[in-house]
Amino acid sequence: MAVVKLLGTWFSPFSYRVIWALKLKGILYEYIEEDLLNKSPSLLQYNPIHKQVPVLVHGGKPICESTVILQYIDEIWPQNPLLPAEPYDRAVALFWIKFADDKLYRGNGEEQQAAVKEWLEMLEVMEEHALIGVKKFFGGDEINMVDIAFSFVAHWLGILEDVLGLEIFKPHKFPRVSSWIQNFKSSPIIKDSLPDADKMSTFLKRGREMMLTSKSN
Amino acid sequence: MAVVKLLGTWFSPFSYRVIWALKLKGILYEYIEEDLLNKSPSLLQYNPIHKQVPVLVHGGKPICESTVILQYIDEIWPQNPLLPAEPYDRAVALFWIKFADDKLYRGNGEEQQAAVKEWLEMLEVMEEHALIGVKKFFGGDEINMVDIAFSFVAHWLGILEDVLGLEIFKPHKFPRVSSWIQNFKSSPIIKDSLPDADKMSTFLKRGREMMLTSKSN
Repeated sequence: MAVVKLLGTWFSPFSYRVIWALKLKGILYEYIEEDLLNKSPSLLQYNPIHKQVPVLVHGGKPICESTVILQYIDEIWPQNPLLPAEPYDRAVALFWIKFADDKLYRGNGEEQQAAVKEWLEMLEVMEEHALIGVKKFFGGDEINMVDIAFSFVAHWLGILEDVLGLEIFKPHKFPRVSSWIQNFKSSPIIKDSLPDADKMSTFLKRGREMMLTSKSN
Repeated sequence: MAVVKLLGTWFSPFSYRVIWALKLKGILYEYIEEDLLNKSPSLLQYNPIHKQVPVLVHGGKPICESTVILQYIDEIWPQNPLLPAEPYDRAVALFWIKFADDKLYRGNGEEQQAAVKEWLEMLEVMEEHALIGVKKFFGGDEINMVDIAFSFVAHWLGILEDVLGLEIFKPHKFPRVSSWIQNFKSSPIIKDSLPDADKMSTFLKRGREMMLTSKSN
């Protein structure tokens, strides 16, 4: 039995947060793909409250909620730290992680118009506040937990634009976000493990069509 | 200038989370009451993203978001710890804190019916999952950060029932929550600093009437 297991879904930005944290730490793990339309008994047992991925299982014990998992990983494996060492800097990082999480959560469950509004607000706050003074990454020269928390913006937002047939992220309006996305997506561990955009786009378009068809019936 | 300042609002459960954390740690602080209908320049400067209380100002630097503030307080002043020492137990505590926070946030912004649904779900999960195996407090014999995160249930929910003229919390349906509420509200530091229920009820009823009147005009 692997000591570290991850229950995830290949298209979930929340699952990728954990995948990247584990890879950045150099931790070997067994990845278990979950079918969200037919959830496994393990998932229901490990996460009875939300019944959602990701779930990290470490030594047989489950940890749920991606941001909680990231903090746990950083405490258990202190190499390549994902949070700043100073309490004030940590608080600032946790503030941005909560911000990204809240926006992403709200964007996720909403009707399209409300979701687009949340995503635009996220981009504006990143551009005008979060990325001020940030050089390559939020963590300086290395990716940290804030970069991981915002990774939805770097990869999934563009895919959703394609699926919805909308342009939300206009690079010339968000130059700081734009160069952060480039830095993030071209960094070695991220670049080699980004989920396939075309595959995700096709999959999400099909899911959307099924949803729209079922609504109109 | 006080080293520790807290910008809060007397009726806010989020402000009280920070007040209780500071009191449990024995930290002296200057409390600054904010008028949310006429926010101070300090509040807007310290929390430009959300423009909300609570804000903790420590040595001139602001920390925003109550759960981020609680973690900061626990790191800066390690006496009477608010989180368990073991990483796994910390992760479980942070999971419940996030759960309480998400439910409270969603309950806060919603229409009445949706808010009541969130609060009932919170009570059910507390009864059937979170409080299983919990003796006096989530933190054992002493209050910890999970108790503080759920303090809305102990005090504010009853006030909202009065304001809305609804019974949401039926004690016989939630015996574990019921005895936790008693333990929480009768513990020394909490008991001596609970905001006045009658005053809050009157204030919130007036606010609600003003809102309903403005809607029907």
